[in-house]
Amino acid sequence: MKAYCDMTREELLAEKRHREKQFEAVKAAGLKLDMSRGKPSRAQLDISRQMMNVLNSEVYYNDETGTDVRNYGVLFGIPEAKYLMGKMSEVEPEDMIIFGNSSLNIMFDTVARSMTHGVCGNTPWCKLDRVKFLCPVPGYDRHFKITEFFGIEMINIPLHEDGPDMDMVEEYVNNDPEVKGIWCVPKYANPTGITYSEETVLRFAHLKPAADDFRIYWDNAYSIHHLYDDPKKQDYLLEILTECRKAGNPDMVYKFISTSKVTFPGAGIAALATSQKNLKDIKKYMQVQTIGHDKMNQLRHVRYFGNMANMHEHMRRHAAILRPKFELVETMLEREIGGLKIGEWTKPRGGYFISFDSMDGCAKAIVAKAAEAGVKMTEAGATFPYGKDPRDRNIRIAPSYPTEEELRKATEVFVLAVRLVSIDKILEGK
Amino acid sequence: MKAYCDMTREELLAEKRHREKQFEAVKAAGLKLDMSRGKPSRAQLDISRQMMNVLNSEVYYNDETGTDVRNYGVLFGIPEAKYLMGKMSEVEPEDMIIFGNSSLNIMFDTVARSMTHGVCGNTPWCKLDRVKFLCPVPGYDRHFKITEFFGIEMINIPLHEDGPDMDMVEEYVNNDPEVKGIWCVPKYANPTGITYSEETVLRFAHLKPAADDFRIYWDNAYSIHHLYDDPKKQDYLLEILTECRKAGNPDMVYKFISTSKVTFPGAGIAALATSQKNLKDIKKYMQVQTIGHDKMNQLRHVRYFGNMANMHEHMRRHAAILRPKFELVETMLEREIGGLKIGEWTKPRGGYFISFDSMDGCAKAIVAKAAEAGVKMTEAGATFPYGKDPRDRNIRIAPSYPTEEELRKATEVFVLAVRLVSIDKILEGK
Repeated sequence: MKAYCDMTREELLAEKRHREKQFEAVKAAGLKLDMSRGKPSRAQLDISRQMMNVLNSEVYYNDETGTDVRNYGVLFGIPEAKYLMGKMSEVEPEDMIIFGNSSLNIMFDTVARSMTHGVCGNTPWCKLDRVKFLCPVPGYDRHFKITEFFGIEMINIPLHEDGPDMDMVEEYVNNDPEVKGIWCVPKYANPTGITYSEETVLRFAHLKPAADDFRIYWDNAYSIHHLYDDPKKQDYLLEILTECRKAGNPDMVYKFISTSKVTFPGAGIAALATSQKNLKDIKKYMQVQTIGHDKMNQLRHVRYFGNMANMHEHMRRHAAILRPKFELVETMLEREIGGLKIGEWTKPRGGYFISFDSMDGCAKAIVAKAAEAGVKMTEAGATFPYGKDPRDRNIRIAPSYPTEEELRKATEVFVLAVRLVSIDKILEGK
Repeated sequence: MKAYCDMTREELLAEKRHREKQFEAVKAAGLKLDMSRGKPSRAQLDISRQMMNVLNSEVYYNDETGTDVRNYGVLFGIPEAKYLMGKMSEVEPEDMIIFGNSSLNIMFDTVARSMTHGVCGNTPWCKLDRVKFLCPVPGYDRHFKITEFFGIEMINIPLHEDGPDMDMVEEYVNNDPEVKGIWCVPKYANPTGITYSEETVLRFAHLKPAADDFRIYWDNAYSIHHLYDDPKKQDYLLEILTECRKAGNPDMVYKFISTSKVTFPGAGIAALATSQKNLKDIKKYMQVQTIGHDKMNQLRHVRYFGNMANMHEHMRRHAAILRPKFELVETMLEREIGGLKIGEWTKPRGGYFISFDSMDGCAKAIVAKAAEAGVKMTEAGATFPYGKDPRDRNIRIAPSYPTEEELRKATEVFVLAVRLVSIDKILEGK
């Protein structure tokens, strides 16, 4: 089929009528499908069903040091959880704190703490005139919401195939002392699915921040979340804490991970890895903040998995459910609008999202159009700070939650929405 | 036996020699006992053992609205948890948010949020020159640590048998706009075990705060934690949210509860009850802070208890373990130092502590002396802001964790420490 932009006005109008009829038909079907969040499906949740038998009335509740995990104490995580999550995060157990069920909550608290108490003895951010964060875009909306909530100025940094634009990152970080952080999803990025290259990680590690309290917020949310079993089809990410140490920047990074998309989104365990100096800073805060996180859930996770090999095996079962969904969307997009020059999309090898770029100025309209036919997408703009996509073109597709049958219908609707909005856009210009 | 203050110098010196010998003997026994925290014993933890069978691989994980609690969503608590915790807190389900495993964490976050974002549109506290909290003393050390951590000025308010000195509370709250909060443990108070009278609660409800953002931090940690089954031996506390509403102060109170000392200190559920206006304020924050708290643990609690009657029954089993420990300490104190005029102590009908007041200027020395013989008490002064007991006399005794046999030995040591330090104090003055 001809690219839309190469069609005559008459051809476009004919195509429009044709697609509108199709759209009215799917609309009449009264769908109600949600593709807005990176939510595991029920089938994925069932993968972890047996974990719920691990703790019961008959087992011992002591951790490996003999401490009863049901009681108060062990504020920073039981040793065996530090060991397992350390393996997952590729760091030593002593570099870790184990938290509750939400890594987002750790990130939020880290920013909140920096606001009221500062980072390692530096001035609390709430006492500064201005604090800035770098935001590789498109990125994760919940990150941007945190910095927005605290009134932190966000600066867009283009995200390329190999990571953020490092020239810009270096320019800002090395020269502007108001730049205190950068949000990163370094592997199978949300939403574009890219993984930072070795060079990118090394350039991060060798930053020379103007601010003493500049930190990289390294949200390795999809560290083991491959879609393919073949190692050649898996992305590899250089371990940054080690590289920062080698580069003489041991305190520059906070690494976040969780099992939210390994076991249960509502009841996983989350962890932070960073330098001893940073850990000390954070522990001072935690000692006042809480009586400790849920150690029983830590024990449940550790006893269920036993070791990293089992966790990887577990992830292969997730991949077996997710992979066909990703491929279904990619195949349909290619077949339906492959040659039309009205959109581009990613083909990630892991993570939870396909990132779709429409023609400029079409994303909001496409999402609205799909909603008309009962398909809820992530709000257009959400992948940018302040919800403002300067080119209004990025749409995040989350294929995980619907069944394959639902996903097929939803993608049909989406494709029609892309067609119709693009036709109107091109007609405007003719 | 004669009161120590009535003894001659010679009698005292003889008594000292006698008690020193006894002390050396217990010291030689090499005890290692911890009476420092209000920690349930292993036997108490075992009361909730069957709760660990409630969720397993065979059950449904849907809440009563059909939502799968294993997944993301339901940020403010599943409906049935709101219902159960609402009953526990004597409020309506819609007045509640269910959080994670630590009510202390809710309190900390409430103060943190007030610092950075203010309360219901008022100026963030971090932008104010000074913020003050009223602290009924003796009180809960972890409360005071929170306000100290945020640089909030703490003002001691004497705690009487019927609650805080309400003349002082009214004087401060109604006139000083810098007073933004008061820490309260209104029932079976930590550490004195007293419960606020109806008159006290009504005076609280009828405060006319000078500050719009003044809030009562009502930590009802021991709401159902009676030591006696006989209702006539149980304390009764007027429900404050209702009274505040009636008095035209609907937004003035935050009520905190948790099941930390009902099920598991490390893995209970905690909740906040307050007005709709306050809830709205808090929800704005939570929506950015977290992907939601552990709903599986909420479901586990609800399915285990089913209703409040079962939770009360459960608490009677705790009481059966705790009561003899409290009575043992009280009996030993009475028998050993009852007539000596060297100390007074509370005989609580619930909660976790016995509060001991020594002669002025003796508490630190007594705690140090007991530690010499291997008995760890709560640090003297801990029950006051900044760890400073102006009269150096209050010691918190936590009888819950040791076995009865250990507790007997620990109390022997404690009593000897009280005797010896008191004798020295009296000798100083002779």
